[in-house]
Amino acid sequence: MSKKYVHGYTAMENVRLVDQATTLADILHSGTVYPAGSNVLEAGCGVGAQTIILARNSPNAKFTAVDVSEESLCAARERVSSQGFTNVTFHQCDIFHLPFAENSFDHLFLCFVLEHLPNPVEALLCLRRVLKPGGTITVIEGDHGSTYFSPESPYARRAIQCLIDIQAGMGGNSLIGRALYPLLKKSNYDDVSVSPKMIYVDSSKPILVEGFTKNTFIAMVEGVKDQAIRSGMMEEASWDQGIRDLYRTTGEDGTFIYTFFKGNALKSTAPEI
Amino acid sequence: MSKKYVHGYTAMENVRLVDQATTLADILHSGTVYPAGSNVLEAGCGVGAQTIILARNSPNAKFTAVDVSEESLCAARERVSSQGFTNVTFHQCDIFHLPFAENSFDHLFLCFVLEHLPNPVEALLCLRRVLKPGGTITVIEGDHGSTYFSPESPYARRAIQCLIDIQAGMGGNSLIGRALYPLLKKSNYDDVSVSPKMIYVDSSKPILVEGFTKNTFIAMVEGVKDQAIRSGMMEEASWDQGIRDLYRTTGEDGTFIYTFFKGNALKSTAPEI
Repeated sequence: MSKKYVHGYTAMENVRLVDQATTLADILHSGTVYPAGSNVLEAGCGVGAQTIILARNSPNAKFTAVDVSEESLCAARERVSSQGFTNVTFHQCDIFHLPFAENSFDHLFLCFVLEHLPNPVEALLCLRRVLKPGGTITVIEGDHGSTYFSPESPYARRAIQCLIDIQAGMGGNSLIGRALYPLLKKSNYDDVSVSPKMIYVDSSKPILVEGFTKNTFIAMVEGVKDQAIRSGMMEEASWDQGIRDLYRTTGEDGTFIYTFFKGNALKSTAPEI
Repeated sequence: MSKKYVHGYTAMENVRLVDQATTLADILHSGTVYPAGSNVLEAGCGVGAQTIILARNSPNAKFTAVDVSEESLCAARERVSSQGFTNVTFHQCDIFHLPFAENSFDHLFLCFVLEHLPNPVEALLCLRRVLKPGGTITVIEGDHGSTYFSPESPYARRAIQCLIDIQAGMGGNSLIGRALYPLLKKSNYDDVSVSPKMIYVDSSKPILVEGFTKNTFIAMVEGVKDQAIRSGMMEEASWDQGIRDLYRTTGEDGTFIYTFFKGNALKSTAPEI
């Protein structure tokens, strides 16, 4: 299966994903610790940016990390072993055709995966099959429509909209964070609970200015410049103005806001009707 | 001085403001407690929605609540005395012409005030004059541009934009929350710290569905219907669709998100340069 991925598969991109995970690790992984001996499936591990955090935070849990891309898995394997973690095994497979028996895992973890799928409910149902009754699922997603900033700029807004539209054109949904609650409910999970994780950045928070606004968010928008220009979504001059205006929000009197959503839910032990 | 106020001064509106404050009180006032004996100025107390919460949370502080509207003050006085609070005195005055000596107050508190002013920095500077060195200012504001929801609706977005534009047309800025940090810095306050207070609502939170999404936010949008239609900003049919779509976000599979911003800062004891 050839999976299209809006952010591409370049070396630069690996760096961005790792930067992103490192800066956000504390915020996104807070509360996610698995008991010793539990079997946890990380679906869509990509280049392993979240995998190393999972492995570190739950050193006595056993992780199975899967991804559809052998290239990404290769980078993930390297990252995990170079950091000395031995509690992760990797498998190349598709979420919709998981090579695991029913009720194989105690817990499921997904981060920045559903946003790329045209059929997230189907993915969640396929994942539910391999989850033991009484087991939990944790899903983390962003929502590009949660972005706002000061000073305002219509050019910056349009550049962000290009990213949203390009991802939508590839069958994804970068506005998925706000819809996590209904998606988990529709996929027959129980005890669904969604927590927003807002990243609020002003110049009193230089680590977030660099690590989040510049190196994560603006870098991600800049990553679709060629597609946006080539497809005629924006003129290059307007695009460049939009990027300059995004950098303007990292100045002394700028602010930048983005929200991630973290959903937790249960596969009920009650018999299916 | 005749002050224009986007939300109007009707009896219904008083009910909305009180509902709003009661539902949000815990979230917005969390951490705001003043020491016994301290003199606190609440600037722009309106109908007293926040005043009763201040008086309750800091029963041994002495509050001076001011507002430009005698009609609002009347409602505020009645509310405060009907609830038995005796630690508030009221004065009718304008923030830009405060009838108090320099360094009169230990602390300043403002909630949903700056959003209505064309010159918030000037207001903050006028307020700073009456604050003692070493005293604090607490400012709470919303940001209508922080609103998003599921399912999406262009009609609902346009109805919200009408509210934003109408408030802007009256010289206010309903997108002010994101700019609190630079505004407090520009007004020469020190140790500025801004915390977002996000209201995330899904159907697992029925109190927020009723108290916030329906009775606070949608009620506020509905309050400008006549102005929006009369001024030709929206056709009535589109408006009604927008309101229906907002109510749709309060359904079983809907979500609704809004963020308030709370700023805290200090008037430094260091001599002015």
